[in-house]
Amino acid sequence: MTYCVGMVLDRGLVFMSDTRTNAGVDNVSTFRKMFTWEKPGERVLVLMTAGNLATTQAVVSELDERSKAVDERAPSLLEAPSMYQAARIVAGMLRDVIARHNQAGPAAESPFGATMILGGQIAGGPPRLFLIYAEGNFIEAGEDTPFFQIGETKYGRPILVRAYDPDMDFEAAVKLLLVSFDSTVKANLSVGAPFDLQIVQRDQLALGPSQRIPADDPYYDAISRRWGEALKSALEYLPDFSL
Amino acid sequence: MTYCVGMVLDRGLVFMSDTRTNAGVDNVSTFRKMFTWEKPGERVLVLMTAGNLATTQAVVSELDERSKAVDERAPSLLEAPSMYQAARIVAGMLRDVIARHNQAGPAAESPFGATMILGGQIAGGPPRLFLIYAEGNFIEAGEDTPFFQIGETKYGRPILVRAYDPDMDFEAAVKLLLVSFDSTVKANLSVGAPFDLQIVQRDQLALGPSQRIPADDPYYDAISRRWGEALKSALEYLPDFSL
Repeated sequence: MTYCVGMVLDRGLVFMSDTRTNAGVDNVSTFRKMFTWEKPGERVLVLMTAGNLATTQAVVSELDERSKAVDERAPSLLEAPSMYQAARIVAGMLRDVIARHNQAGPAAESPFGATMILGGQIAGGPPRLFLIYAEGNFIEAGEDTPFFQIGETKYGRPILVRAYDPDMDFEAAVKLLLVSFDSTVKANLSVGAPFDLQIVQRDQLALGPSQRIPADDPYYDAISRRWGEALKSALEYLPDFSL
Repeated sequence: MTYCVGMVLDRGLVFMSDTRTNAGVDNVSTFRKMFTWEKPGERVLVLMTAGNLATTQAVVSELDERSKAVDERAPSLLEAPSMYQAARIVAGMLRDVIARHNQAGPAAESPFGATMILGGQIAGGPPRLFLIYAEGNFIEAGEDTPFFQIGETKYGRPILVRAYDPDMDFEAAVKLLLVSFDSTVKANLSVGAPFDLQIVQRDQLALGPSQRIPADDPYYDAISRRWGEALKSALEYLPDFSL
């Protein structure tokens, strides 16, 4: 499994992904699920992936090759005129890779599907965030749904729904995300640290601060330990039920 | 879908279930999913059900008929010598009903499966709580896993894991359950109020307080509204992340 969240704030975009992959509980590895592209001053793109690892790695490799090969005719993320066109490129690539694997030979037990979150900003447009489906179509985050989750989305959702505020600063957003990730990690063995964090500041058109947060990070550890107490205090703050 | 939680406390057992059933999003009804049997002074049993409604209703009807028919030879919940034997009766009934439906005719699109939580106390034994599977086997709650959830279990789990305390009183437990239910209702349309609440006090050997909590219950409404603020305060109480 996987857990990734992309979030639109007034100040820009925040991305966080876990790094655990597994094929059964006895075959667990660590892989990066967050990928970035930038042309400073012109564009910045962040992609997070969930689902079949062979599929998502193939998509990222092809996107990378196209970004590097100058004489490659195919559309490249570094040439896309808008975030919408960038999302179309990623979505088309995802659909093609899945179709190729499906016809390649013996059917696998697990499907080749994958889901992706693409966000970023290209000069002339605002920061935008997309959720891309295996079918090759996608939806965009808006005011009413200002964040997307992929992978094991349920455990970490209630806190996001309740505490998200478009006005929050990046520090508060990262804290919120870490609480959401911690709830998920505590409930699903197939989601695990380290977590990759990437911030994209509005109109900077370049990658903002990024960090890899390990399982033994003192701050994450403090959040994880103290969130239990904080929740208990929050419960106590509510009026008691009378039987 | 469904959401039910059964919880073992030092003081006894608490049960809460929602009442929404659906076959698709355009076919929504309200059905009770909590059923009780008692012989005051000797035994008290509470059953909650999730899954195929035809299956769970058939199981409850058969359990009821056996409890009423005095000359019925088959084992009855009101005759079972222990909670373990009561769980065996329910589990066997569940497996039989599913097997009967499976061979009865055209296969349904949705499987006939169901999961149940059975709890209670029979004179001579402590209060016990079981999670019963469609296969007809079951597990019992213990110190390390002191509560069971069935149905849409994920959204409401983190708060239970963090805030559960075997020492809590029934009032606090109901508050905790309502927060867990509220998180689930907010995330999954197929879980909905009214909620049924049943308390079983240790060694009372009779049904304790019970209540149906409607969607517009003032207390539930207050919990639902104020939990968002409480969570935000809890987040603020945590140290900020520094970029």
